Amino acid sequence: MSRIEQQFDFIREIDKEKLIERQTYISSGERKENDSEHAWHLAMMTILLSEYSNEQIDVLRTVTMVLLHDIVEIDAGDTYAYDDTAALDKREREQTAADRIFALLPDDQAVKLRGIWEEYEARETPEAKFAHTMDNIQPAMLNDATDGRAWEEHGVHLHQIMKRNERTGEGSHVLWDYALNNFILPNVKKGKIIDD
Amino acid sequence: MSRIEQQFDFIREIDKEKLIERQTYISSGERKENDSEHAWHLAMMTILLSEYSNEQIDVLRTVTMVLLHDIVEIDAGDTYAYDDTAALDKREREQTAADRIFALLPDDQAVKLRGIWEEYEARETPEAKFAHTMDNIQPAMLNDATDGRAWEEHGVHLHQIMKRNERTGEGSHVLWDYALNNFILPNVKKGKIIDD
Repeated sequence: MSRIEQQFDFIREIDKEKLIERQTYISSGERKENDSEHAWHLAMMTILLSEYSNEQIDVLRTVTMVLLHDIVEIDAGDTYAYDDTAALDKREREQTAADRIFALLPDDQAVKLRGIWEEYEARETPEAKFAHTMDNIQPAMLNDATDGRAWEEHGVHLHQIMKRNERTGEGSHVLWDYALNNFILPNVKKGKIIDD
Repeated sequence: MSRIEQQFDFIREIDKEKLIERQTYISSGERKENDSEHAWHLAMMTILLSEYSNEQIDVLRTVTMVLLHDIVEIDAGDTYAYDDTAALDKREREQTAADRIFALLPDDQAVKLRGIWEEYEARETPEAKFAHTMDNIQPAMLNDATDGRAWEEHGVHLHQIMKRNERTGEGSHVLWDYALNNFILPNVKKGKIIDD
């Protein structure tokens, strides 16, 4: 295949992300969102909220990271944040998926995008830390906008949320404080998140 | 409202894009795609295909442009490419929408994002030309991937497609040639697009 054919092959393949359903409801409550919608929302948030990053970030690299961070779920599926069983082999399933999907691209782009995905997973750079902050506060925002429905349906406890978010502040203390006080704690008060 | 509250107000508002349906089917053919999915797809394409731009482009600016280019459709709705009646007042409906939606943001970000949207609409800069190329070839790619279904359902003629795409090559001659020869003309041969 020629370079441009490989690129379009990948671009067609990732269309499948539009069918990977997440556990978060969209703000109207009509249905759950999917991975591609989630990624778009994170990209817009990254552009609008980068001023709150604890450290200076390369916005294009971070936007690229959030746009592609769930691509492996085309094969591996979405692993719900509080599904401890599925979490056990998540890493392995996602690495196998990454091997297949990024390999559709021309070598230089495969290496580059796989690198950005691995950087996200490793969560060490300012960009990766901020991308994880986006990934964690967006569903909290939507859960709050839908009156805590997803939390309530899954019987989520506050300690689970706090554990999942123990590193969210590494990307942005300001945004984590805002999300905790405006999206999470009000839903503990309303009984949508189980206090413990 | 504080700055951060304005920003989250806008971020929640644009969630509505996930419900704006387009006429293009996703590649599995299960359903049509929505504006937020389309924008995500264009952003990934921009990152992967910028090498084919006729002129050097600022990739972050172009990605931002494609991510937000349809935000006005939250109020104005999607205007199908070949709906000539709806096209008559499209500009007015979209300007009114832009007035309301971008004004949710803090002033500096409202001015910046509105500017990027106006730049897209004006189609004069290399970034805007390339963004339009993305916006035009992505549905052609998906229509081809779904065996020309959307073209067939709407009884689309080749001359309509050629007119709509008379400026697509301004962003990238390479990509327009590729789309014409690989997505459009094969569907004329198959009778999915009406030859004339």
